[in-house]
Amino acid sequence: MPATLGEIAEEIDAELEGDPGCKITNVAALHDAGAGYLSFLANRRYYPFLKTTRASAVVLAEGDAPGCSTAKLVSSDPYLSYAKAARFLNPPVDFNPYIHPSAVVYENVNIPAGCFIGANSVIGKDVSIGDKTYIGPGCVIGEKVVIGSHCRLHANITLLNRIEIGERVVIHPGVVIGADGFGIANDGEEWLKIPQLGSVIIRDDVEIGANTTIDRGALGNTMIEAGVKIDNQVQVGHNTKIGAHTAVAGCVGFAGSVKVGKRCMIGGASAIAGHIEIADDVVITGMSGVSSSIKKAGVYSSGITITDNKTWRKNMVRFKQLDKIVKRFFELENNIKK
Amino acid sequence: MPATLGEIAEEIDAELEGDPGCKITNVAALHDAGAGYLSFLANRRYYPFLKTTRASAVVLAEGDAPGCSTAKLVSSDPYLSYAKAARFLNPPVDFNPYIHPSAVVYENVNIPAGCFIGANSVIGKDVSIGDKTYIGPGCVIGEKVVIGSHCRLHANITLLNRIEIGERVVIHPGVVIGADGFGIANDGEEWLKIPQLGSVIIRDDVEIGANTTIDRGALGNTMIEAGVKIDNQVQVGHNTKIGAHTAVAGCVGFAGSVKVGKRCMIGGASAIAGHIEIADDVVITGMSGVSSSIKKAGVYSSGITITDNKTWRKNMVRFKQLDKIVKRFFELENNIKK
Amino acid sequence: MPATLGEIAEEIDAELEGDPGCKITNVAALHDAGAGYLSFLANRRYYPFLKTTRASAVVLAEGDAPGCSTAKLVSSDPYLSYAKAARFLNPPVDFNPYIHPSAVVYENVNIPAGCFIGANSVIGKDVSIGDKTYIGPGCVIGEKVVIGSHCRLHANITLLNRIEIGERVVIHPGVVIGADGFGIANDGEEWLKIPQLGSVIIRDDVEIGANTTIDRGALGNTMIEAGVKIDNQVQVGHNTKIGAHTAVAGCVGFAGSVKVGKRCMIGGASAIAGHIEIADDVVITGMSGVSSSIKKAGVYSSGITITDNKTWRKNMVRFKQLDKIVKRFFELENNIKK
Repeated sequence: MPATLGEIAEEIDAELEGDPGCKITNVAALHDAGAGYLSFLANRRYYPFLKTTRASAVVLAEGDAPGCSTAKLVSSDPYLSYAKAARFLNPPVDFNPYIHPSAVVYENVNIPAGCFIGANSVIGKDVSIGDKTYIGPGCVIGEKVVIGSHCRLHANITLLNRIEIGERVVIHPGVVIGADGFGIANDGEEWLKIPQLGSVIIRDDVEIGANTTIDRGALGNTMIEAGVKIDNQVQVGHNTKIGAHTAVAGCVGFAGSVKVGKRCMIGGASAIAGHIEIADDVVITGMSGVSSSIKKAGVYSSGITITDNKTWRKNMVRFKQLDKIVKRFFELENNIKK
Repeated sequence: MPATLGEIAEEIDAELEGDPGCKITNVAALHDAGAGYLSFLANRRYYPFLKTTRASAVVLAEGDAPGCSTAKLVSSDPYLSYAKAARFLNPPVDFNPYIHPSAVVYENVNIPAGCFIGANSVIGKDVSIGDKTYIGPGCVIGEKVVIGSHCRLHANITLLNRIEIGERVVIHPGVVIGADGFGIANDGEEWLKIPQLGSVIIRDDVEIGANTTIDRGALGNTMIEAGVKIDNQVQVGHNTKIGAHTAVAGCVGFAGSVKVGKRCMIGGASAIAGHIEIADDVVITGMSGVSSSIKKAGVYSSGITITDNKTWRKNMVRFKQLDKIVKRFFELENNIKK
Repeated sequence: MPATLGEIAEEIDAELEGDPGCKITNVAALHDAGAGYLSFLANRRYYPFLKTTRASAVVLAEGDAPGCSTAKLVSSDPYLSYAKAARFLNPPVDFNPYIHPSAVVYENVNIPAGCFIGANSVIGKDVSIGDKTYIGPGCVIGEKVVIGSHCRLHANITLLNRIEIGERVVIHPGVVIGADGFGIANDGEEWLKIPQLGSVIIRDDVEIGANTTIDRGALGNTMIEAGVKIDNQVQVGHNTKIGAHTAVAGCVGFAGSVKVGKRCMIGGASAIAGHIEIADDVVITGMSGVSSSIKKAGVYSSGITITDNKTWRKNMVRFKQLDKIVKRFFELENNIKK
């Protein structure tokens, strides 16, 4: 949906330096953009492209404006302003309501007239779906599932029985919601499976990335609060609760009964141990291991970052002797001070 | 299936302090339970809820009994006793045998009368399925697969050709068993794929979590022994063997040709390198990296746990200099002792 | 497809010591092989099996030949020679071209006569498929997808709209290509989703393991270059580019906009941060965290390997004090030297 620079400036609340009548077709990256495209600079790594870009206009911060010879949309938060412009130029694609004849729909299902049910999807009995919701091909929706309106379930998604999904929820392919949690007890010889009796509740405006899994509660529910954004291949264990507007990057694993606060950001490939709490507004950097509760907002990290293999090997040897070496040091220090 | 406290006490081998005729509807968590519910205390974190719970009875250890004003079921292993009670009150749900007309069943397939084959599932030729086995919607079962009786394959599961599954095996959605292992050889310019000629054998009473992948052997088979419990998003490489009654938490990766012993517990998000052996009764804590064999039973750990980012940055700098600093220390120590 | 040792020796360019007329049925591991089987020794761990193997012949290095009493195929790279022999004895299985009647094929789709479309697959409109390509059961192929010839998509795979796949590409079950990247911007209260407008391009001869996910670009494309081999459960973020003939082991996560060079080897369970570059011919060992660019070929590592839990706990305590302790040491050293 093309627009003029003037219309975009108004929409994204940025200050335009340039021709408000200039037609913009869409957004593009600085190094890819041609005439008619709007670009942006939000990460200083890409500053060198500012000089050579052929974009018709660039969203950027005031401090970067002097380096830019095209039209500018100056913003205090260029990434957010770019996001708004991209959304304005690319409104969600409409679909034609339809139930594909190959879809299998069980009895007592509520599907309003504005919905789409894709080919070879299976909708279990007693399911209720809100209007304008799109369920793509190959999805399996269990019994008594409730899905709100304006949701988009892309394809090949599995929702087990009794799951509840809010409004405007987006779920990407391969996602499994409501599989049994990992509840087992050892009777001395073997593991007894513990019935997983709870459910999963996903609130409004949540987005869930491809191949992510969210287990049903053992007792009580696993909860994903409003506005949470979860990337691909994230594992959420039973009875974990993720607070509103928290963002979780790819490959993160939450064990069971974790309580994550509001507005947290969990870096990719991190692992969170069971039964711990993370306060509101906590940022965890990538590949961190969280094995105890975090009680205060702030930025937290763990792990070892990469070096050449030879140096790493030597340092690893020392790490494995660390306590012994430190004790020798304290002894020496003590002897000298005496 | 409701029961009386007396019946439950007998079933779970616990000592009842309270009215044996009290009717119990189901189990619930301490803070959620209302009248008619049985709860339990197995993790001391939840002790504060013991005083305020409205459960009709609580399973707990003798030492915690004085803090509990409701009826009690005193047990030497409250979690195990709770598991037994939950299983007693929630026996597996029966299904009506049925082959959905949309399922595609190839020639020479053996499906006993007690089985369920879900909508849009595909059963390849020469497949043999045991009685009372449930295969949910959207599953793809390759040729010559053998599945035992009383199994439950939930939905959207893929078993490639020639896989063997034992009895009472539970497989959650999104699982892929028998995809080719990652076998490649470099010819100087490019990677040659090595044919993956083996299979996967899953023994009785195994449970496999959502979106877990278990590759077929390159030569010989990948083996999951009896009673193994695997959580979600676990990757098992070709020719790996996991010993009986081992439990593997979520997001663990096993490279190829790993040999894991019996009754091990592998913590979530751990990674196990190829061609190593782990003895029986080994416990590996979460997010560990195992790059050499573990020859003795015991508890093993690795990784760095989380701190505030500022402290972590400083410590990381020192870690990267660790070998050099330690050598300076040894030199100093040596000079002083002389 | 059986062959004689003489034929195999010629095919794999190895020196035969033994009867060139000996019939070989197939390949097998040293400890499993019986008469009529060819085995190999490429990893010294398996040397003890060389003495007891009942294989009819063994592919091995010159140095290991004296320990082998069967026929030998002596090679300067036994693993590569074995790979060639296994490929020679196990050529790809042909399929009968067919479109299963339960497959749903939308309008304006190009499917040449040599293709196979499996049961319950869904092929979106305007899709173009090359000849001799096999698409197994339960796949969902979005609109305007282009797939080259001689590809194999096993089963239950999802390709979203507008993805491009080259020739001879192999994709294992559960793979999702082209889901939206994790692009969100915070407006102070909630996360705004940024439209993901790019696509994914997969070049020729790529192989992609089970349940791997490759996100579409935000702007511009995510690129997997020719000959790249990706194992199971790998996550590739939006706009990441993986150079030709790079191999990526299981459970690796790439954040967005990563640039990986040619011929790299990325060890399993590693995590690569966003917007960084990795040079050509870089080897990253397993479970490494890469948070800054790697500019030179070489072997790189990070992480902490496993020890017994008691030692690890003590060392961890010291790690968390490391900067403070090192500063005390420098002070002491300084005082003494004065």
